[in-house]
Amino acid sequence: MGRAMGLAGLLLGLFLVPAVLVSTSLRHGAPRSESESAPAPGPAEWEPASGAVPEDSLWPLPQWLRTSRRQLQLAPGRFQLVHGAGSSAGPACGLLQDAFRRYYEYMFGQSRRRKRGRRPVGARAEPELSQLQVVIESRDPGCQSYPHLASSEAYHLTVTEPVAILKADEVWGALRGLETFSQLVHEDDYGSFLVNETEIDDFPRFAHRGILLDTSRHYLPLKSILTNLDAMAFNKFNVLHWHIVDDQSFPYQSIYFPELSDKGAYSYNHIYTPTDVHLVIEYARLRGIRVVPEFDTPGHTQSWGKGQKDLLTPCYNGEQPSGSFGPVNPILNTTYDFMTKFFKEISSVFPDAYIHLGGDEVNFDCWKSNPEVKEFMKQQGFGIDYAKLESYYIQKILDIVSSYNKGYIVWQEVFDNKAQLKPDTVVQVWMENNYAHELSSVTGAGFTAILAAPWYLDYISYGQDWKKYYSIEPLDFPGSEKQKKLLIGGEACLWGEFVDATNLTPRLWPRASAVGERLWSSRNVTNLQDAYKRLTNHRCRMLRRGVAAEPVFVGYCPHEARGQ
Amino acid sequence: MGRAMGLAGLLLGLFLVPAVLVSTSLRHGAPRSESESAPAPGPAEWEPASGAVPEDSLWPLPQWLRTSRRQLQLAPGRFQLVHGAGSSAGPACGLLQDAFRRYYEYMFGQSRRRKRGRRPVGARAEPELSQLQVVIESRDPGCQSYPHLASSEAYHLTVTEPVAILKADEVWGALRGLETFSQLVHEDDYGSFLVNETEIDDFPRFAHRGILLDTSRHYLPLKSILTNLDAMAFNKFNVLHWHIVDDQSFPYQSIYFPELSDKGAYSYNHIYTPTDVHLVIEYARLRGIRVVPEFDTPGHTQSWGKGQKDLLTPCYNGEQPSGSFGPVNPILNTTYDFMTKFFKEISSVFPDAYIHLGGDEVNFDCWKSNPEVKEFMKQQGFGIDYAKLESYYIQKILDIVSSYNKGYIVWQEVFDNKAQLKPDTVVQVWMENNYAHELSSVTGAGFTAILAAPWYLDYISYGQDWKKYYSIEPLDFPGSEKQKKLLIGGEACLWGEFVDATNLTPRLWPRASAVGERLWSSRNVTNLQDAYKRLTNHRCRMLRRGVAAEPVFVGYCPHEARGQ
Repeated sequence: MGRAMGLAGLLLGLFLVPAVLVSTSLRHGAPRSESESAPAPGPAEWEPASGAVPEDSLWPLPQWLRTSRRQLQLAPGRFQLVHGAGSSAGPACGLLQDAFRRYYEYMFGQSRRRKRGRRPVGARAEPELSQLQVVIESRDPGCQSYPHLASSEAYHLTVTEPVAILKADEVWGALRGLETFSQLVHEDDYGSFLVNETEIDDFPRFAHRGILLDTSRHYLPLKSILTNLDAMAFNKFNVLHWHIVDDQSFPYQSIYFPELSDKGAYSYNHIYTPTDVHLVIEYARLRGIRVVPEFDTPGHTQSWGKGQKDLLTPCYNGEQPSGSFGPVNPILNTTYDFMTKFFKEISSVFPDAYIHLGGDEVNFDCWKSNPEVKEFMKQQGFGIDYAKLESYYIQKILDIVSSYNKGYIVWQEVFDNKAQLKPDTVVQVWMENNYAHELSSVTGAGFTAILAAPWYLDYISYGQDWKKYYSIEPLDFPGSEKQKKLLIGGEACLWGEFVDATNLTPRLWPRASAVGERLWSSRNVTNLQDAYKRLTNHRCRMLRRGVAAEPVFVGYCPHEARGQ
Repeated sequence: MGRAMGLAGLLLGLFLVPAVLVSTSLRHGAPRSESESAPAPGPAEWEPASGAVPEDSLWPLPQWLRTSRRQLQLAPGRFQLVHGAGSSAGPACGLLQDAFRRYYEYMFGQSRRRKRGRRPVGARAEPELSQLQVVIESRDPGCQSYPHLASSEAYHLTVTEPVAILKADEVWGALRGLETFSQLVHEDDYGSFLVNETEIDDFPRFAHRGILLDTSRHYLPLKSILTNLDAMAFNKFNVLHWHIVDDQSFPYQSIYFPELSDKGAYSYNHIYTPTDVHLVIEYARLRGIRVVPEFDTPGHTQSWGKGQKDLLTPCYNGEQPSGSFGPVNPILNTTYDFMTKFFKEISSVFPDAYIHLGGDEVNFDCWKSNPEVKEFMKQQGFGIDYAKLESYYIQKILDIVSSYNKGYIVWQEVFDNKAQLKPDTVVQVWMENNYAHELSSVTGAGFTAILAAPWYLDYISYGQDWKKYYSIEPLDFPGSEKQKKLLIGGEACLWGEFVDATNLTPRLWPRASAVGERLWSSRNVTNLQDAYKRLTNHRCRMLRRGVAAEPVFVGYCPHEARGQ
């Protein structure tokens, strides 16, 4: 009944269970020296912890960390998250106030003993940690603003008696530090909340760390999107790439063109109203997550055609229109009038500095069949090179979007087809085949790049495929130091052909967590055995916080999912 | 961003959407004749329906069906499920009373207009169907009994004005017929409930149609198991193969040996108490589902060793015990004393006529290392053939279980290793490699067989893998007619290495539905295009009924999942 694999897997499991190893790759710089690993208890001595090592459940691993054996106790009824002295943020900073409450709940919410002072301090030997003081050092903390590509997410955290201090330039770093602090706090067998004395210096390796969700192949209810934003924050992702419309459906309710969703959405139940969109953006902002919407043209637009007459190219069967339609019609002025108005709305609805304009997988057959398109090709001197027609179209769209002071992201074909791109264009590399070479070309031409190719998480397979995603080194492509700097991050993509609210969360998490650590942590954090242990704990933590992340392998969590 | 596959998939989707085809393979015997397909409306004329064809959402497809264009209307406030004249069952039959209420809820529960007589009949032109009368024809309807391998699940259903009649020998057939009737009822655009006049004669192709759930690699909360039993009933499955314990954990709380779960379960939260087990059995019985527990020995027993001293074989490193343990120790009398008592309990707790005794994947290394086992081999004259030792052990277990008047199911190795098996032993074929040959051998030796090999649903892959499961023809193995009759069914197996409550339901459904139809419907029901359409509708129905079945492909359901 079982299978050979089952036994092999079991052996792996048994092998991993007893090993409470302290990763040596997790400290900044060189592995820990001999003297550091000698056990010498005492409050002043920094040393590797053993037993309940805090690194056992940190995910993604911080850039630099040292931790002590000395433990502090937290009393849920007394412990406070507060603005520290000298912080530019205060109680008026709604973003932090909201985060304080949220992380208090994550740390203590499951506890049965939240009453104040139910157990006197001193019932355990450990001294008490009474506060986490958060200090924002930049003059403008950014409480009202939106995160952007250049936002600082760095933070410095010291946990010592009697107060922990979290310092960050901007609120975005504070959010990341709160997540880390909450991961350090653990409950012991007796229900006491403990944290080891720790110092952490942390910052992301890559600035763009995204998750792509596809709400066209299947509609995702708001609740699924918000849960995913929670999970993203737990994994320090900072970009929701919202592939909001595509061939199959147009759930985005446009203010200028309501017919697009009236006719292009699956049904009236399958629409994101302006209120919904605003809610997603604000929920994301409060977690330091940018929302980059994608309105992919000229291909992948069948659903647009239902609510916008003459937008798509009529395909021909010989001399006659066949009744079906192809990509956006690039030869009509009305197309550009529409796009001008449409993207004006999009630029205003979505605050992010970037819009994703798609530009992938344009099928030329329909254009080739249409006599007016062929005539236009002749006039423009494009010959029979339809990639030129595509670039002609894209060029105009890029100009429109630029006029609204937005930057844009495009799929790699737009670069491959040699459209004239603004120097700050971001090119997203998605084709699995030889993506390193593509990264080399894109950055070689001076463009900024995002890597998605090895992280198409909709391609499922049996077993622990997170290891495959984890083992990708994004900078392993031929190029100069300058080129390497142009790779600003990556995205885990969960295309929606086979995904909806029934399976989104367990399919995405914790598999995407592997990508999260790869994009945040130091390049040398590559030990699979250490990662397995931390990921298993991290997955249980996500479960406890309401994210139905699937199991990494055999075993259990203290708090299981309730069952469907 | 997308991918070539996406486009191909889209084309498939577009191809399927407009076609409201009536399957020709779904009638018993020959395809429908020319005259049958001519449109000729009128109440007395049986003809293929078009538009809202009831077959569009029937799953699994009945053995024989004819349907009319004529529609009847159901008024939720008046419609009744009742015991018909001449039925041997009446209001004292709790099983049917419970089923009536359940199916009433499935048919009308989502409706906003359940009030009595809110809309007068005649607001629509259709005549009214006022009752479904259920008639059990056997003298003993079986209301208090448990379903078994020889139970009759056949039923005959006629839906005509003014009452529908469902006839079955036993309650088990009535349960299957109620499911079918509920699938025939549909809600139109105005919220009216309609059913086409229909006649159905139906029975299962195979008697054993199982789902294997594994509660050892991960614990499954009771709620997940019960939801799965609901889904099984929607797909006419009739056996829950409960792989309840294994190496990783022992969640079964034994009455005689409580230490087995005290020490062998993952934690105190990860246990099935006697009450839990009883609840599963009763919930299954009410849905016509047998619960066959598997207590797999002598391999896959690591967790048993924690709570039962000396049960497992001590492994040796040279002359010394290594501290680790292997399979059950087959050379000690205490082993058989334990098993005698243990299986006495199991035989009494689980009412089914069969117990699954496992017997797969026994690793001989530990036995080979143990000097006392080697000495025993010598005494018994087994030479170095450890398969003989395995058979020696299995033989004794089979004899113990037989003494409690239970039949047993074993994995194929027990047959392969030539244990002496009682003629009524059921052999479960699981090894993917050349399973047709194995079926041939097992049935050739006169044993009954169950096929699982091609239906290991824990092996996931990208795309519509249901087609692969659907396209398996179980009887495609070399053998006589007599041998073919010995294949009594099959099982879809969802092993638990990577499955728990977070992903069980969407991973299993509707992929297992493909196996469900293969095992229930006529051999000639093989049209993938027709199946796609019905499966898509069936999946939406499961969703509406509270089973988070994942999407088959792009699209939507009128009632979506709420999101996690």
